Amino acid sequence: MSNLTLLGENAVRAKYKAAMIPTDKKNSVLNKCAEELIKNADAIIAANKLDLDNAVKNGMSDAMQDRLMLNTSRIEGIAEGLRQVASLPDPIGEVLDTFVRPNGMHIEKIRVPMGVIGIIYESRPNVTPDAFSLTFKAGSACILKGGSDCIESNKAIVKVLRDVLSGEGLDPDILQLIEDTDRAVTTEFMKMKEYVDVLIPRGGAGLIRAVVENSNIPVIETGTGNCHVYIDKDADPDMAVNIVFNAKTQRISVCNSCESLVIHSSVKDKILPLIYEKLSEKNVEMRCDERALGVLGDKGSPASNEDFGREYLDYILSVKTVDSVEEAIAHINKYSTHHSETIVTENKESAEKFLNEVDAACVYHNVSTRFTDGFEFGFGAEIGISTQKLHARGPMGLKEITSYKYRIRGNGQTRG
Amino acid sequence: MSNLTLLGENAVRAKYKAAMIPTDKKNSVLNKCAEELIKNADAIIAANKLDLDNAVKNGMSDAMQDRLMLNTSRIEGIAEGLRQVASLPDPIGEVLDTFVRPNGMHIEKIRVPMGVIGIIYESRPNVTPDAFSLTFKAGSACILKGGSDCIESNKAIVKVLRDVLSGEGLDPDILQLIEDTDRAVTTEFMKMKEYVDVLIPRGGAGLIRAVVENSNIPVIETGTGNCHVYIDKDADPDMAVNIVFNAKTQRISVCNSCESLVIHSSVKDKILPLIYEKLSEKNVEMRCDERALGVLGDKGSPASNEDFGREYLDYILSVKTVDSVEEAIAHINKYSTHHSETIVTENKESAEKFLNEVDAACVYHNVSTRFTDGFEFGFGAEIGISTQKLHARGPMGLKEITSYKYRIRGNGQTRG
Repeated sequence: MSNLTLLGENAVRAKYKAAMIPTDKKNSVLNKCAEELIKNADAIIAANKLDLDNAVKNGMSDAMQDRLMLNTSRIEGIAEGLRQVASLPDPIGEVLDTFVRPNGMHIEKIRVPMGVIGIIYESRPNVTPDAFSLTFKAGSACILKGGSDCIESNKAIVKVLRDVLSGEGLDPDILQLIEDTDRAVTTEFMKMKEYVDVLIPRGGAGLIRAVVENSNIPVIETGTGNCHVYIDKDADPDMAVNIVFNAKTQRISVCNSCESLVIHSSVKDKILPLIYEKLSEKNVEMRCDERALGVLGDKGSPASNEDFGREYLDYILSVKTVDSVEEAIAHINKYSTHHSETIVTENKESAEKFLNEVDAACVYHNVSTRFTDGFEFGFGAEIGISTQKLHARGPMGLKEITSYKYRIRGNGQTRG
Repeated sequence: MSNLTLLGENAVRAKYKAAMIPTDKKNSVLNKCAEELIKNADAIIAANKLDLDNAVKNGMSDAMQDRLMLNTSRIEGIAEGLRQVASLPDPIGEVLDTFVRPNGMHIEKIRVPMGVIGIIYESRPNVTPDAFSLTFKAGSACILKGGSDCIESNKAIVKVLRDVLSGEGLDPDILQLIEDTDRAVTTEFMKMKEYVDVLIPRGGAGLIRAVVENSNIPVIETGTGNCHVYIDKDADPDMAVNIVFNAKTQRISVCNSCESLVIHSSVKDKILPLIYEKLSEKNVEMRCDERALGVLGDKGSPASNEDFGREYLDYILSVKTVDSVEEAIAHINKYSTHHSETIVTENKESAEKFLNEVDAACVYHNVSTRFTDGFEFGFGAEIGISTQKLHARGPMGLKEITSYKYRIRGNGQTRG
C-alpha cells in the first residue's frame, strides 16, 4: 500500500467523524488552534527559516520570498483568521428545502459536508491553516498538498494543528499533509477519486491546467482572471477613470484585477486621455487597438490580437474600441475567463443588457472588478474564486464547499 | 479544423442565443417539437428499422432490441414527454439570494444556464429528445453523443428537432448530434473543455468510468447503485418484507433497486424466512453471510466479500447480518455507491441516526429505495441520478443542470 493510499484511507475514516462534530466543538477547536499557533510561533518561524534559506539558495525573487516569510505578526494574523472562521455560522445541517409527495413521503434536502477535500497550492504557508479551518468548519476532512518551497513551514503548522485535534479527542487525520514533494506524488494524488470527493487547485494557470487535465477527482477550477472594464457611451467620465484606475492598479497580481479596457468609440476621444493621465501615475502601459492608438498616439503601444486574451498580472492594460454595448458584450464573452466584468454607464438599459448577457461569475455595473472576493461579498472567508460553472461560481466561502443530501421519511411506501 | 471543433464553435455561438430565449418561446418550441415528431413518425420509424436490422445482424439480445425499438405509441410517449417539459416552470432567472454590502453594492445571485451541456449515452433513442428538451428548457445548447446502435434513429429525431428550431427562427445548433460513431471521436469529445461546460454520461458503469477517467470537462457522474435495505431490530416485519420485495424486484435493471439486505441479528430468525418466502415468488437468489446462512440453510447460497460491493441488476440479493445500527451504517458506508439507502424501523432514534450518518444522495426511513427518481420527487423530469457530491446529488431535474452568477450594482465603488 503506497503512502498516499494510506492517507486516503485515513481521510475516509476521518471524514465520517468530522461530519459529526457539533458546532460548538468545531469552534472551540478552531480557537484552540489559533492559541496554539501563537504559542508555537518560535518553532514555526524556525521551520520557515529553513524554507527561506532554501529559497535564497534557489535564487527565489524578493517578492516571492516575502510571500513565503512568516513572522510573529503574520502568525498572529493567521490565528485571527482561524478565530474569524470559528465565529462564522456553521453551514452543516441547514435545511435547503422540504416537500411532501402525494404518497406521503416527506423529503428534506439538507446541507452536508463534502467529505474529503483535497487542496493543491503553491508557496504561501498561510494557505495551510486557512484551508484547514474552512474545510474543518464545513465538516470535511482535508488532504493538503502545498508547494515544496514551504514544506518545512507547512509541516510545522500542520503538527501544531494535528496536536490540537488529538488533544481535543478528535481524529488528527481530519487534517493530513502530503509531505513528499516529488511531482509524481502530486500526479498520483490527482487520481485518488476513490478517497477524495473534490480537488481544489489554488495557484497559477499552469497548476490549474495540470489538475484539470490529470485529475479523475471532480475539480473546482479557480482563479484565472482576464477581467474587463467596459466604458459605455453614457459613462460618467470621472467614475470611469476611478474604476479603471482601481481595477487595474490597486493590487496588480490578483485574479480580480482588470486586464483589458473596452471603450465605446463615441467617448474614446474624451475619456481615453483622462485614463492615460491617471494610469501614468503607476506607469501602466496601454496596448491599444488601432482606433484607441489614434487617440493616444505614441503614449500607447499597439496591441496584438493575443493581447486581448492575456492575464498580465502586471502594469499593462489592453484597450479595445467598440461601437455598441452589443459589440462590447461579444468581445468580452469571446476573450473573458468568465471571472469578473464591469460596465460603467449611466444608461440603465445598457447596464441591464450587460448584466444579463455577459457570461461571468460576477458581472458589475458601476463597480470595480476588485470586489470579487469572499470577504468583500460578506462570506467571512474564502477558499478561492471559481471560474467554472459546475457546483460553485465566483467567491467560495463555507457553503460553497459543502454538498447536500435528501432525507426521506415515510411509513412503508413502495413503488407501484 | 476537425469536425468536433466546428461543433464546439457552433455550440458556443448557439449557447448565448439559447440563454436569451423567453420562457413562452421555449415552451411553444417544445410543443411544436412534440407535434413534428408525431407528424414525422413514419420517417423516424423507418430510420429505426435500419438500426433494428443492424441489431439483428449484430446478434443483439431481444431485451436490448426492445429498448431500441420505436413505434407510433412510443413516439407519442416521447412527444408527451416534451409537452411535460414545456409545462414545467422555467428555472432561468430565478433570484437565489440578494444582499447589500456596507459600501452600498447590491448583490444578486441569479440562476443562469449552464452554457453547453454534453451528454454521452447508450442505446435507447428516446434519450435524444428527452435530453434536448431538458437542456433547451434550462437555457443551454447541447451536444449529444448517442450509441452507435441507434445512430439512424437519433439522426432522424435530431433532424426533426433542428428543423423546428430553424423554422421557429432559432439557431439549430442549439442541438447538435455527433454522427461519427468512431470511439476515438467520443474520446476527443471528452476533451472539449474549451467548448463544453459540463459532460453528463448516462449508461453503464464502464461508460461512466471511461468519461471520468478521460474527460477534461467537469463531469456529473450518474447512476451506479449498490443500494441497501437495512432491517433494524425494531422493524415492522410486514413492512420490512414489502420494502425488500419492492426495492429488489419491482424493476430489476435500474440503479435505485436494492442489491443488498442488511439485517439486525436479533430479528434474522423471524424475518429472513419471511423475506425468503416472498422473494421466492420471483426466484431471487439470496447470497448470505454465515449467520444469515445459518437461518436459511440451503435456501440461501454463501456470499463472498465481493458480493457486498456488487450491483447485480439481477434477481440476486446479498445478505449481511449486523449487531447494531452503527454496524449497519459502517457496512453501508463502506460498500455503498452513495445512491439510495433505507432503514426499516419503528425506532425513531435508530432512524435519525441512520438518516444522519449514512452517506448517500437519498437516505430513506421506512420507504423503498425505488423512489430515487426525478418524477417521484416531483421534479417533473430527470436527466439522471448524480452519485457524486459536486454540484448536484440524487435526481437531477431542470434546476440541477443550471449554474448561477452574481449581478452587482453600484454607484462607483472602488476598493481601498
